[in-house]
Amino acid sequence: HMEHNDHSLVFADLSAVEYKQVRDYMWKQPDLNISKKATASPSENFIFLIDLRLPKKSDVLRYLDMNEKKPDREASVVVFYGSLGKIEEYVVGPLPQPTYRKTVTLQKYKTQPPINARPVTVGEYMQLFAFIHKQVFKNLTKLLLESFNVSKESILHPFEGMPRGVKSGDRRTWFAFFRDYSGMYIHPVGFEVLINHSNTNCEYWTVDKLMYNGQYFDTVEELKNKYEAGKIIKIVFTPIENYASLKPRVKPAEISPQQYYPQGQRFSVQKNQVLYLDWSFAFGLSSLTGMRVFDVRFKGERIAYEISVQEAMSVYGSITPGMMLTKFLDSSIGIGRFAHELVRGIDCPYTATYVDTYRYIDFNAAQRFRNSICIFEHDTGRPLRRHFFDFFHYGYGGMPNTALVLRTITSIGNYDYLWDFIFYQSGSIEAKVHATGYISSSYYVKGNLQFGHQVANHTIGNIHTHFVNFKVDLDVLGQKNIFQTKDMEFKEVEIPWVTGKKAKIPHLVEKLINTEQDAAMRYDRKTPRYLHIASNRTNRWGHHRSYRLQVFSFTGDHLPQTEPEEKSMSWARYKVAITKYKDDELTSSSLYSQNDMWSPAVDFSKFIEDNESIVQQDLVAWVTTGFLHIPHAEDIPNTVTVGNGGGVILRPHNYFDEDPSVNSPDAVYITPK
Amino acid sequence: HMEHNDHSLVFADLSAVEYKQVRDYMWKQPDLNISKKATASPSENFIFLIDLRLPKKSDVLRYLDMNEKKPDREASVVVFYGSLGKIEEYVVGPLPQPTYRKTVTLQKYKTQPPINARPVTVGEYMQLFAFIHKQVFKNLTKLLLESFNVSKESILHPFEGMPRGVKSGDRRTWFAFFRDYSGMYIHPVGFEVLINHSNTNCEYWTVDKLMYNGQYFDTVEELKNKYEAGKIIKIVFTPIENYASLKPRVKPAEISPQQYYPQGQRFSVQKNQVLYLDWSFAFGLSSLTGMRVFDVRFKGERIAYEISVQEAMSVYGSITPGMMLTKFLDSSIGIGRFAHELVRGIDCPYTATYVDTYRYIDFNAAQRFRNSICIFEHDTGRPLRRHFFDFFHYGYGGMPNTALVLRTITSIGNYDYLWDFIFYQSGSIEAKVHATGYISSSYYVKGNLQFGHQVANHTIGNIHTHFVNFKVDLDVLGQKNIFQTKDMEFKEVEIPWVTGKKAKIPHLVEKLINTEQDAAMRYDRKTPRYLHIASNRTNRWGHHRSYRLQVFSFTGDHLPQTEPEEKSMSWARYKVAITKYKDDELTSSSLYSQNDMWSPAVDFSKFIEDNESIVQQDLVAWVTTGFLHIPHAEDIPNTVTVGNGGGVILRPHNYFDEDPSVNSPDAVYITPK
Ligand SMILES: [Ca+2]
Ligand SMILES: [Ca+2]
Ligand SMILES: [Ca+2]
Ligand SMILES: [Ca+2]
Ligand SMILES: [Cu+2]
Ligand SMILES: [Cu+2]
Repeated sequence: HMEHNDHSLVFADLSAVEYKQVRDYMWKQPDLNISKKATASPSENFIFLIDLRLPKKSDVLRYLDMNEKKPDREASVVVFYGSLGKIEEYVVGPLPQPTYRKTVTLQKYKTQPPINARPVTVGEYMQLFAFIHKQVFKNLTKLLLESFNVSKESILHPFEGMPRGVKSGDRRTWFAFFRDYSGMYIHPVGFEVLINHSNTNCEYWTVDKLMYNGQYFDTVEELKNKYEAGKIIKIVFTPIENYASLKPRVKPAEISPQQYYPQGQRFSVQKNQVLYLDWSFAFGLSSLTGMRVFDVRFKGERIAYEISVQEAMSVYGSITPGMMLTKFLDSSIGIGRFAHELVRGIDCPYTATYVDTYRYIDFNAAQRFRNSICIFEHDTGRPLRRHFFDFFHYGYGGMPNTALVLRTITSIGNYDYLWDFIFYQSGSIEAKVHATGYISSSYYVKGNLQFGHQVANHTIGNIHTHFVNFKVDLDVLGQKNIFQTKDMEFKEVEIPWVTGKKAKIPHLVEKLINTEQDAAMRYDRKTPRYLHIASNRTNRWGHHRSYRLQVFSFTGDHLPQTEPEEKSMSWARYKVAITKYKDDELTSSSLYSQNDMWSPAVDFSKFIEDNESIVQQDLVAWVTTGFLHIPHAEDIPNTVTVGNGGGVILRPHNYFDEDPSVNSPDAVYITPK
Repeated sequence: HMEHNDHSLVFADLSAVEYKQVRDYMWKQPDLNISKKATASPSENFIFLIDLRLPKKSDVLRYLDMNEKKPDREASVVVFYGSLGKIEEYVVGPLPQPTYRKTVTLQKYKTQPPINARPVTVGEYMQLFAFIHKQVFKNLTKLLLESFNVSKESILHPFEGMPRGVKSGDRRTWFAFFRDYSGMYIHPVGFEVLINHSNTNCEYWTVDKLMYNGQYFDTVEELKNKYEAGKIIKIVFTPIENYASLKPRVKPAEISPQQYYPQGQRFSVQKNQVLYLDWSFAFGLSSLTGMRVFDVRFKGERIAYEISVQEAMSVYGSITPGMMLTKFLDSSIGIGRFAHELVRGIDCPYTATYVDTYRYIDFNAAQRFRNSICIFEHDTGRPLRRHFFDFFHYGYGGMPNTALVLRTITSIGNYDYLWDFIFYQSGSIEAKVHATGYISSSYYVKGNLQFGHQVANHTIGNIHTHFVNFKVDLDVLGQKNIFQTKDMEFKEVEIPWVTGKKAKIPHLVEKLINTEQDAAMRYDRKTPRYLHIASNRTNRWGHHRSYRLQVFSFTGDHLPQTEPEEKSMSWARYKVAITKYKDDELTSSSLYSQNDMWSPAVDFSKFIEDNESIVQQDLVAWVTTGFLHIPHAEDIPNTVTVGNGGGVILRPHNYFDEDPSVNSPDAVYITPK
């Protein structure tokens, strides 16, 4: 029987108190001149983000495995210096009483991300909305009223396209407008404006282009004049019911089936540590990359040092400008940032354990997100294993497949991603993502059916991809591992008992992969069916003890490598890529990738460019999954989770000497007599 | 609110009474001379199988849709005429008082399957075991005692390789021997014998070859002499604990989470008809092919005429003769035949509804299989859809993903397959298979590591494939359908607002597939990502109403087409193949495929050889899924279901005008204030 300990705290997210300690320390630095406003303007200096600075893996392992001292707690702090036109990242520590701040930007990214690589802050959005209101809406009242019923009482809402331009330094954003409805994302009105907001001083911003009903205009004036002169094809406002509404249309009836724990909960959560039967792990939630687990152990033995969400990417196609070039990289906006309260009985079972999280991002104080992580044991409704036998012997043995689920759901604008890490009694871990929420849509103008289907009145659901990247730092019996592939091949053999007769029979083909580039399993080529992170140590039967990565994926094509934006998502080339672990290769994407896709602060393909040996090294697997999404009417109002997801199962493969579930107390055996 | 009706009875399996009526009718035929024994010898005439003869689809549809007369109930009867050396299939009807028998063998198969294409009956097995006992075991008592501890009290059990030879007409079977343990399949002893039992008269049977510890012998005498002369490498018996045992090793502890229906069951089962929220369907279980559903309707509208299991195939590799050429085609033995009682709380939830089935196969009376089908509503533990919003509007809408599961589990020798048909509130249907039970194994002799891993003492878990074929006869708004594919393609376009700048963006590429051969989506080529059975009728937004087939698969390579056995499994070439429905193309495999793989009674590839038009025809999709299995230590004692399966989701795609789950009473909406 396992007991909780404090070891997981080394991975714990910063607490509300710690965020404040770091913020106050930064605010007190006389040379930095940081604004204390809740929402600073882009020309001010602003703490955008405070997050846990993960201690160095080697330090953590010395602490966990060799009883050496616990690493200091440190924070990572991101400051946007609007007044200086630069971005700086700091390490601040040690907590609880910080005494130092170290500038780590250049060391971390090997480049200084330009100021326009920063995400748009709430402060900048407020200026943008004010700018649009003043420069566009105020000057188009007649058009807006007649076309979209815009008035003091009735407004439109913007949705942005990204990236914000076509080359490094650009910060020109298309805002497409949507009806003022819940679920506005599927109510496009056919009006979009291109704002150049590359200067941190909004005085210099300009309206660079407008699109109305498929027609382009260089200035607000031009649109206004042509509209009033009747020289363009007008949109005439028609009221419409809100088909995006999620309000139930019928009364509740009998409640759906529910789960309960007849003899109590079989798992335990203490701070950020979970114990469940033979499993233990630490968990956390990065504001940027999202949910992660550390020091994942089965029967006390570490299987994985880290499993974490890295990035969620989507590439869209459209004829409308706001979406035509859209390529979303969510970790640049913040995936974990949008982990909101989970609804009992729907997002997770009523009987789940719910955990609060605290984040400091794009605001001047830490915020609490109540019940934003849930943990529950789930009955999958089928046996984990079973056999019925009535040949020669008679009986039955089996056990149910119940598993522990750790979940967050992040609502990044229109989309909601469900993130699950699942722990099975057979020693497998699954990392899984499902998509739901609203699709992104565009106004139905001529030519747009090349890019999707009509899904509602004047509304096109545009074709797009979902790509998700997971970091899987397995440590199979220590850090020194190898990467093996296994597959089948038909080879011809002689049949020993039929003279002269040959037959093709399946052979096992095993390979040891020596270098990072050979281990980069591209999606556009055939991948061996079994991929293993293995130890040189063998199990009782002489085979390398390993964990296999089994990827579930329905991805489309990510982006041709010839496109300049592709560098920012080069991880998506590979179903699985294996790198040698490095302290400065912690994430496959970055906060700055979205707004500088052309020179991204992190280009994953560089991790493997040096083509290092991966034999007996600390290996990290970067796993990409996802699905091609061709929206259809049934995506209205929301995409359903059924069939819309992907993931990876990490499965023991000769890691044990037999299936560890043989030792489960859930096993059942029945014999006649 | 739906009510039960009697329509589903047109698909109902024969009852115990009906089996008896047919059997007695056949027994009474003076010219047929059919044995009434429970287990007849191969030289006798024997009713091997009585099963429902499905009424013709056109007759059924006239009955269901046009209120015409209910088709007669008829039985399909398979008789093995040992005395005549032939197989005959009959249609016997009408029930309950049969008045006719029609010979349909030639019409059904366009060939008369030779007598040796028949499966081995219990009667033949009894003769085989007696033959082996007398001709082999009796003459090798010393060897068997010393090597395997065989005595009056201690025996070995046989497990067969298939096919039984290398060419049409062969009936030569390798029997490999295993320890007398529960789970014998992973206790090979290294002794195998090749028996020629091609004559229906066992007097003519011969021992053709023996394998002992990797060495081959032509006769029992040769083995005996060489063994006694000490000229061969001996196996010396060593006792071993039964690592195959499924007996729990620890005491039960707290019980695992369970599901319940807080306000009662939301589905209803009456005879072979299920009603569940908006769903209704008929179900049945063919002794040969297994579980199937018919007349699947959502909101009263037929989506599928039939969804059924067709075949489960495995190809093995080994250096040992019993497994070297093994290629199992389970429907030739009978998949549904082995649907045994389901264990409450493990195979299905305690709260499931359990249904008995009755079968008549390889015995002289119908047998009852208690609780061999289960039906339950399952909480998948995640939302079907949800969205949390706090941009511009504030609130939450969502609903849990509960679905109805129809399940059987078939234990075909060593393996157990879980067969699920799952009905979702979003209008999707999933057909799913998971594998568990024991792997097939072989004795560890030199060279066998090319074919698998050692998984236990002297035991190799041999590499093999799992391929499963489903028949999916969707009728999308009637029988006349088309087959469409959709996918993405990057195409270069000019960016309208950046002069001279181009970008590659994703386009939707749709194709109408005109002929059967173009619609045969081979596994060894790239398949379009979206496959649709569509109606020419359009939804509200002008798009073809369709169901999409989304295949989940981890298959290996099935068998090179140059191999003579490949014809018997030609369906496995295709992830999805679309055929024009024909009354004489009801199944992709046959009862005779296993034992005459070289000239199989059904060769699926012939269905598409005529390359018929599939435009506005009644279409059937044949879906293949499965996984490559490289056994590893964790397959001992049983393969786990986690990650070991495959399936297909049938998803509405522009079939509706919006997601039908918007009308679910399970939907929830939360707003502040
Ligand atoms: Ca490297
Ligand atoms: Ca590692
Ligand atoms: Ca045909
Ligand atoms: Ca059809
Ligand atoms: Cu999508
Ligand atoms: Cu298998």
